[in-house]
Amino acid sequence: MRQAMAEAEVGDDVMGEDPTVNELQKIAAEMFGMEASLFVPSGTMSNLIAVMVHCRERGDEMIVGDLSHLHIYEQGGSAQLAGVHATTVTTRPDGTFNLMQLEAKIRHGYPDPHYPRTRLICVENTHNIQGGRVLPLPFLQEVRALADRYGLSVHLDGARVMNAAVALDVPPSTILQHTHTVSVCLSKGLGSPVGTLLAGPQDFISRAVRCRKALGGGMRQAGVLAAAGKLSLQQMIGRLGEDHHNARTFALALLDCEPSLFVVDMSAVETNILRFRIKDSALSPQEFCARMGQVGVGEEAALGQGVQVLMYPHHENSIRAVWHLGISPEDTQLAIKKMQFVAAQLLNKQVKAQ
Amino acid sequence: MRQAMAEAEVGDDVMGEDPTVNELQKIAAEMFGMEASLFVPSGTMSNLIAVMVHCRERGDEMIVGDLSHLHIYEQGGSAQLAGVHATTVTTRPDGTFNLMQLEAKIRHGYPDPHYPRTRLICVENTHNIQGGRVLPLPFLQEVRALADRYGLSVHLDGARVMNAAVALDVPPSTILQHTHTVSVCLSKGLGSPVGTLLAGPQDFISRAVRCRKALGGGMRQAGVLAAAGKLSLQQMIGRLGEDHHNARTFALALLDCEPSLFVVDMSAVETNILRFRIKDSALSPQEFCARMGQVGVGEEAALGQGVQVLMYPHHENSIRAVWHLGISPEDTQLAIKKMQFVAAQLLNKQVKAQ
Amino acid sequence: MRQAMAEAEVGDDVMGEDPTVNELQKIAAEMFGMEASLFVPSGTMSNLIAVMVHCRERGDEMIVGDLSHLHIYEQGGSAQLAGVHATTVTTRPDGTFNLMQLEAKIRHGYPDPHYPRTRLICVENTHNIQGGRVLPLPFLQEVRALADRYGLSVHLDGARVMNAAVALDVPPSTILQHTHTVSVCLSKGLGSPVGTLLAGPQDFISRAVRCRKALGGGMRQAGVLAAAGKLSLQQMIGRLGEDHHNARTFALALLDCEPSLFVVDMSAVETNILRFRIKDSALSPQEFCARMGQVGVGEEAALGQGVQVLMYPHHENSIRAVWHLGISPEDTQLAIKKMQFVAAQLLNKQVKAQ
Amino acid sequence: MRQAMAEAEVGDDVMGEDPTVNELQKIAAEMFGMEASLFVPSGTMSNLIAVMVHCRERGDEMIVGDLSHLHIYEQGGSAQLAGVHATTVTTRPDGTFNLMQLEAKIRHGYPDPHYPRTRLICVENTHNIQGGRVLPLPFLQEVRALADRYGLSVHLDGARVMNAAVALDVPPSTILQHTHTVSVCLSKGLGSPVGTLLAGPQDFISRAVRCRKALGGGMRQAGVLAAAGKLSLQQMIGRLGEDHHNARTFALALLDCEPSLFVVDMSAVETNILRFRIKDSALSPQEFCARMGQVGVGEEAALGQGVQVLMYPHHENSIRAVWHLGISPEDTQLAIKKMQFVAAQLLNKQVKAQ
Repeated sequence: MRQAMAEAEVGDDVMGEDPTVNELQKIAAEMFGMEASLFVPSGTMSNLIAVMVHCRERGDEMIVGDLSHLHIYEQGGSAQLAGVHATTVTTRPDGTFNLMQLEAKIRHGYPDPHYPRTRLICVENTHNIQGGRVLPLPFLQEVRALADRYGLSVHLDGARVMNAAVALDVPPSTILQHTHTVSVCLSKGLGSPVGTLLAGPQDFISRAVRCRKALGGGMRQAGVLAAAGKLSLQQMIGRLGEDHHNARTFALALLDCEPSLFVVDMSAVETNILRFRIKDSALSPQEFCARMGQVGVGEEAALGQGVQVLMYPHHENSIRAVWHLGISPEDTQLAIKKMQFVAAQLLNKQVKAQ
Repeated sequence: MRQAMAEAEVGDDVMGEDPTVNELQKIAAEMFGMEASLFVPSGTMSNLIAVMVHCRERGDEMIVGDLSHLHIYEQGGSAQLAGVHATTVTTRPDGTFNLMQLEAKIRHGYPDPHYPRTRLICVENTHNIQGGRVLPLPFLQEVRALADRYGLSVHLDGARVMNAAVALDVPPSTILQHTHTVSVCLSKGLGSPVGTLLAGPQDFISRAVRCRKALGGGMRQAGVLAAAGKLSLQQMIGRLGEDHHNARTFALALLDCEPSLFVVDMSAVETNILRFRIKDSALSPQEFCARMGQVGVGEEAALGQGVQVLMYPHHENSIRAVWHLGISPEDTQLAIKKMQFVAAQLLNKQVKAQ
Repeated sequence: MRQAMAEAEVGDDVMGEDPTVNELQKIAAEMFGMEASLFVPSGTMSNLIAVMVHCRERGDEMIVGDLSHLHIYEQGGSAQLAGVHATTVTTRPDGTFNLMQLEAKIRHGYPDPHYPRTRLICVENTHNIQGGRVLPLPFLQEVRALADRYGLSVHLDGARVMNAAVALDVPPSTILQHTHTVSVCLSKGLGSPVGTLLAGPQDFISRAVRCRKALGGGMRQAGVLAAAGKLSLQQMIGRLGEDHHNARTFALALLDCEPSLFVVDMSAVETNILRFRIKDSALSPQEFCARMGQVGVGEEAALGQGVQVLMYPHHENSIRAVWHLGISPEDTQLAIKKMQFVAAQLLNKQVKAQ
Repeated sequence: MRQAMAEAEVGDDVMGEDPTVNELQKIAAEMFGMEASLFVPSGTMSNLIAVMVHCRERGDEMIVGDLSHLHIYEQGGSAQLAGVHATTVTTRPDGTFNLMQLEAKIRHGYPDPHYPRTRLICVENTHNIQGGRVLPLPFLQEVRALADRYGLSVHLDGARVMNAAVALDVPPSTILQHTHTVSVCLSKGLGSPVGTLLAGPQDFISRAVRCRKALGGGMRQAGVLAAAGKLSLQQMIGRLGEDHHNARTFALALLDCEPSLFVVDMSAVETNILRFRIKDSALSPQEFCARMGQVGVGEEAALGQGVQVLMYPHHENSIRAVWHLGISPEDTQLAIKKMQFVAAQLLNKQVKAQ
């Protein structure tokens, strides 16, 4: 990938003259079943631009999941920078919404001046906070039908939509036929160092170009990054299944761990994100994660367990682990051994302390 | 009141030179136990200014109830105009929040760039959508303690805080000691044609003056309105109890109605807003309200029931009725008779239709 | 006027149900030759709403005079609250622009993402900072032709457009035929305590209602103010000519003052605002104005010159005096005598000091 | 440079964990004499962040040159996204301002609610629209002294400040000692494909990190770009003098052209941007540039003049040509020959046409 970047043919992308960027955008649009796409520096910018274009008039509003990345982790940019009011619906554990609640949130009383005007529904697939959950296709279909009934747009924060496609074993366009626009990250699982693709109708993308420029996301010779993006789309999607497999392997090892210490809902381990809990409330997620992150010494090192395994305490006392390009099946086996060692050691310490 | 307006001494309030406005602001600040207050054209502007001053730096966030007036009925102005992101907590039927949920929403990870920075908690008292519910003083005390712990401000949308004070039989300052700032409407129950008072610390009000001007709420000879406001504060608070009594009287009549048609939770009838439901799902709130709003003719008029009673279908299939200055005990009795007549007539029609 | 206010029939204007407001809005629309009008609390809000409606999409821009009230005295609300970028053209001493400069500022390269999209040209008539100057009708006609050529809108900050109409001896609609929308103040010369009318096409006003509400300018029983507004439009316009006459009388007295101390361009004294300069640079505008504002004692009082005359140092070392409803021809004569007394006294002191 | 990018050690820069980015930021801060610096995707974002941090409270205002890149070519992002009002001063042909005009624009009347609050003065060096002009050090010193007197900040749009440093033969820190913050582009003359450095005090940069994230400028493995940036700063500055020399060579050739067709002010050819005019108004800049941009055929190709030379019609009928990394002295000689050929040919055609 670095070699492709080193050899990329470039031009001035602000002027739309970078051939590698243009090629990447064409490939992506075709793969997503969209009219056009745009290369942007980050998923946060991609989502923000989508909100800016869909909600482009004063007093427009969007509906988002209360646990969506867009609502929680993007510094409130939609309000701060774009002046767009957000109404939230409850994100269910599988990343979906109750459709009746969703419908009740739509403000269809325009032009009643008490209300903003609903323009956009945002969904997230796979769902980050809910542990890489894959949205069922019928849910997306129903959201789209609802949106069509009220003249709204649907934007998908599809940072990991390729993982969803792999998990469902469908081409991404099968998922994306139900959304007007999508944002897809090339970094993370797809291995590019930088970059996200925003895709949608041609008119949407034309407006998105303007928003990208205003935000400062217009980059000059972006082709060096787009070269990596091309490889991500052309060669890296196949390998996502490996991440899913590794996550599942680790999850099963958690369940098998003796003594039994962990709670895992295997039906929720659908892609490359694993959320699990510690049974024993006396052992905190913080403590466990800290210990997993320490390079082992002494006996641990001797056992070949001197590895660092980074996982983080997460939403509602769970622990979150993510698999990506850089973690092989062998690494996963090492992580399992480390987990078993740490679990035993921490429990021992507890027993002694009592 | 009109006479007081006609005789008001005025000046240019944009320059702070209107003596009647200045006097009103002084009276209000004292009554509310605040350092200073500011006369503004509406409750919506008052709340918006409060948000603008409390959340005055880029990336500031507030926490509001998901059923608050500020979040639902103010066109999303806090995001649209002030760029302030809102996170919501669930509004319980009595207008309060679960304090653990509230605390969990506070973003204390500053400066983590993924998060906005929580600055403000907004509460509403009495709570409009929840039917004029009075926030318990211990709840306000706990919200304030939480805010103090995290260095946040508490703003009270107290459009009807005077109703709360009357219902609790305490001076308003007893309620307002728990909030940093408050917005109090002079119209509605207090009878002024126009105007709201925003009160808080002197520094807050100095900044509020600037925000009011930017929004276009600086009015020249506002003293003609302030003259009415003075009467509202000095002579109209006492009469709010009458509205509460009338609402309660009507609510009891709903319960006593034969045949039994209505559901009313009497413990929730605390002030001048009444919410009730229709038992029989075959009779819609829309139909009932439409019929109550028609001037009666024929037999109805003969029975003295030719009155128009305005009530509206509301949140979650309830019906909402509000008492104010213009509705006397006698009017309430007429409304009761009309309600009984309409209920009987509609039920009759239903029976025949079956 | 106060009596009319006291007797006004009112309703809830937020719901469009205040008959007096509705009547005022109808009268104004007819008088201005516009489809509809809207009553708002201030000229600042009226201009801000106009900007918000004309420039309602992300990335819209307006062109304003660099000395316009909108650009200088409204706290930058168009950028701060509405996110609208402003490009300025040079305001000439008569309040007009160079049309070639104006045309050069129009960004017609849409969708080049380097540029905002020009949507609006704002003019001001009479021009405040330039001393109440009346825009020539041919200038307005040419601005409108230019706007039409580029598909732009023209908004007139016509806070004092009635003064312009009186000065030109034409009905206001003769001026306003050249603008899409206009903001007209009812306070100031027209004597209402509070209020401004924003007028334009029906669709514009429908959108303006929403912006007014978001800003917090929706007032409940605004009829008490509208009653005054009706009188302003129906009975007060005729008297504006008196203000113009008084301003001219005072200006001539400045020229006649012995010893010769003041510079006045009589061709620029067109309405109720007078700008003049002090010849002798050793006497500052600040000093002169301060002295005029002091209540005279001793000899001065004996001569009947104990009056306070408020005038203010202004743009580029000029002094600004404004005539309105409250200043009679007799007051003007008193002010002239005071001016002569003060001028003589200050010069005397200077001579002694040298 | 591509090789350095291919070998760059990377990490997650959103978490501040990319070693190459951190190294670049350290090198830049030292070179600029600033406490800290931040890598951002573009000059537009860098300037926007600077405005957002310096003007971070509601109602803040900045003063910018009317011909500055920030005001003209950044889509009005400062107003659109940051809500910051801009007041302009006249940009003189050498890129400087009249200091008295600048001072007169400062609003020091806070908290008068009519005014925004001036917080920031922006300068540009070298000045783009004015043809790469280098700001004299005493001018920067005086601007800074003025800013200090009023408690304002000075931000330098220093996209090409390295060209200024080379032209003045001083280290960049000699220029930057007079500004609080600076934005420096790594692309353009310094040859990096993507990237700009924003530098200033530590507290400023900490806030800038948050703004960058909100705008979507936080990139994951940005080290691949930062590796190029390091080379730009360490090895490319020296070569800027070559661009200046080439621009000067071409400018002299324009002056020497026979017949005499071009107007060039040699004292204004200070760096790598050349602005010139065509004497004969019958030959348009558009026509000349179009012809220079055509690949020559026939006689032209035979003379070795088959090159494409891209230059563009610019501000006020001038033509703009820019030298950078990709244009060698030999290319410049070819461009000169092409220019001579085209000039002769176009003049010939004109003569025949007459």
